[in-house]
Amino acid sequence: MKIRKAVITAAGPNQYRLPLQRFVDLDGTERTALRIIVDEAAEAGVEEIAVVVQPGQSATYTEAAGDRARMLQFIEQPQPRGYGEALFRAAPFVGDQPFLHLVSDHLYISRQARRCAAQLVEAAQAEHCSVSAVQATRESMLRYYGAVGGRRVPGRNDLYKIEHVLEKPTPTEAEQRLVVPGLRAGHYLCFFGIHVLSPAVMEILGRSVAAAEEAGWPEPVMLSPALEILAQRERYLALELDGVRFNIGVKYGMLHAQLALALAGKDREETLARLVELLAGLGPGSA
Amino acid sequence: MKIRKAVITAAGPNQYRLPLQRFVDLDGTERTALRIIVDEAAEAGVEEIAVVVQPGQSATYTEAAGDRARMLQFIEQPQPRGYGEALFRAAPFVGDQPFLHLVSDHLYISRQARRCAAQLVEAAQAEHCSVSAVQATRESMLRYYGAVGGRRVPGRNDLYKIEHVLEKPTPTEAEQRLVVPGLRAGHYLCFFGIHVLSPAVMEILGRSVAAAEEAGWPEPVMLSPALEILAQRERYLALELDGVRFNIGVKYGMLHAQLALALAGKDREETLARLVELLAGLGPGSA
Repeated sequence: MKIRKAVITAAGPNQYRLPLQRFVDLDGTERTALRIIVDEAAEAGVEEIAVVVQPGQSATYTEAAGDRARMLQFIEQPQPRGYGEALFRAAPFVGDQPFLHLVSDHLYISRQARRCAAQLVEAAQAEHCSVSAVQATRESMLRYYGAVGGRRVPGRNDLYKIEHVLEKPTPTEAEQRLVVPGLRAGHYLCFFGIHVLSPAVMEILGRSVAAAEEAGWPEPVMLSPALEILAQRERYLALELDGVRFNIGVKYGMLHAQLALALAGKDREETLARLVELLAGLGPGSA
Repeated sequence: MKIRKAVITAAGPNQYRLPLQRFVDLDGTERTALRIIVDEAAEAGVEEIAVVVQPGQSATYTEAAGDRARMLQFIEQPQPRGYGEALFRAAPFVGDQPFLHLVSDHLYISRQARRCAAQLVEAAQAEHCSVSAVQATRESMLRYYGAVGGRRVPGRNDLYKIEHVLEKPTPTEAEQRLVVPGLRAGHYLCFFGIHVLSPAVMEILGRSVAAAEEAGWPEPVMLSPALEILAQRERYLALELDGVRFNIGVKYGMLHAQLALALAGKDREETLARLVELLAGLGPGSA
């Protein structure tokens, strides 16, 4: 099993601007969030990337991808019918092969030389099944994420067999269905924003999309319910990655991501010096 | 003398994206840099604002200005013929009245209740002449800014009569022509990015533009040479504002501006707590 293709979803209402925001990356070079996410996928070994976008965004995104634009193709989601429907638009691109999937509103910093997506792809290729990256997350943050329940794979402390998937569960739902033995109390495994998924997900999503269409689109088609079905059908694992994720779509999300990049990257010393100046109330204009 | 109009220049090559970047403002609300700059002008009392843009940017900028779009009109600069030529495009808009001028790649934090542009407009209206905001700036930073030389207005410690204006002077040029008696050693008065200018500037720029056109546009038309001529013709002052400027176009400029906004605004405590977490190396994903 070799992961050759990736799908990045960027069609969410009010989300299309996030991938266009600019950051100074770990190496000190300025890049858009889109370019950083595309790099994440490319360095995991994929050769082709589909980006699901709102209608009319292809030209802007092509520019935002810079040198990497050659790897990209764009798929439009004509109506905002949910994250699941957006991903399903890439079904013909994916075909019958497993694929890497990344959201477009998260940035990642690995604690290893290998980037986060590369760690995940390696695990999926070794395990020959779908694997979602997860992070142990405080109960108070459950409302922002999809979360999984399951149990540790024997002999591994970073790998879990997923039994349930719930989107933004309440603390009560999480306590009933998502407690993972061995995890710190009050913590749950929440999605990190990177997945390797088998093509069965597209088939499951296809049924959800068809049902929603028949019902006249009563609500957006989500991904988590499809992953819950996947967990019942196939071996589906969760990997705790050696890294951190930054949701750039939340308030101050871009600030925190940029600060973390600056502190983890080659400009750490300069960033620390500037922080001390700012905290001391010295104006940077006189710097 | 009442300042009713403002001109924002945003047509510089590679600069058109900066006003579209998003920041959490002092009040905790997310806004584009353009919107924050337009707010700066509006709160200084101006009623109409012209934004000089690259061709084809009006729709994007209108969206980026949000509720304030009603105050705006857009003027295209068809060719990148310099900052001075961009500003001169607004001559018909300005007419024979003094106007406020702001660059679009700086954000400002005032140390007073009144914003920076409001402080400057008040000074210009009191002095009945052109006034540029300046900041005492270390010699090592001269290469990024326009700088002025002159002498203190008697009885004031924040106001100077401008005698010379030089764009990005070398330290030697600055030492020969821009030393200001009474300023800290090794410091010069550099432009802050906000000016109140008399309509004479447009006339001077018009001559420069005509000369450049006749010569076949050998180099971009800059603003500083026109301001040097203005200083010879009219009373022209520099005001040290009670605030700081952030150039968002330099490396990490957006990070520093956002950090300063977060530390000066209503979310200071939360920002400090998050900084400590990040510096301690705790991943925010588990926050």
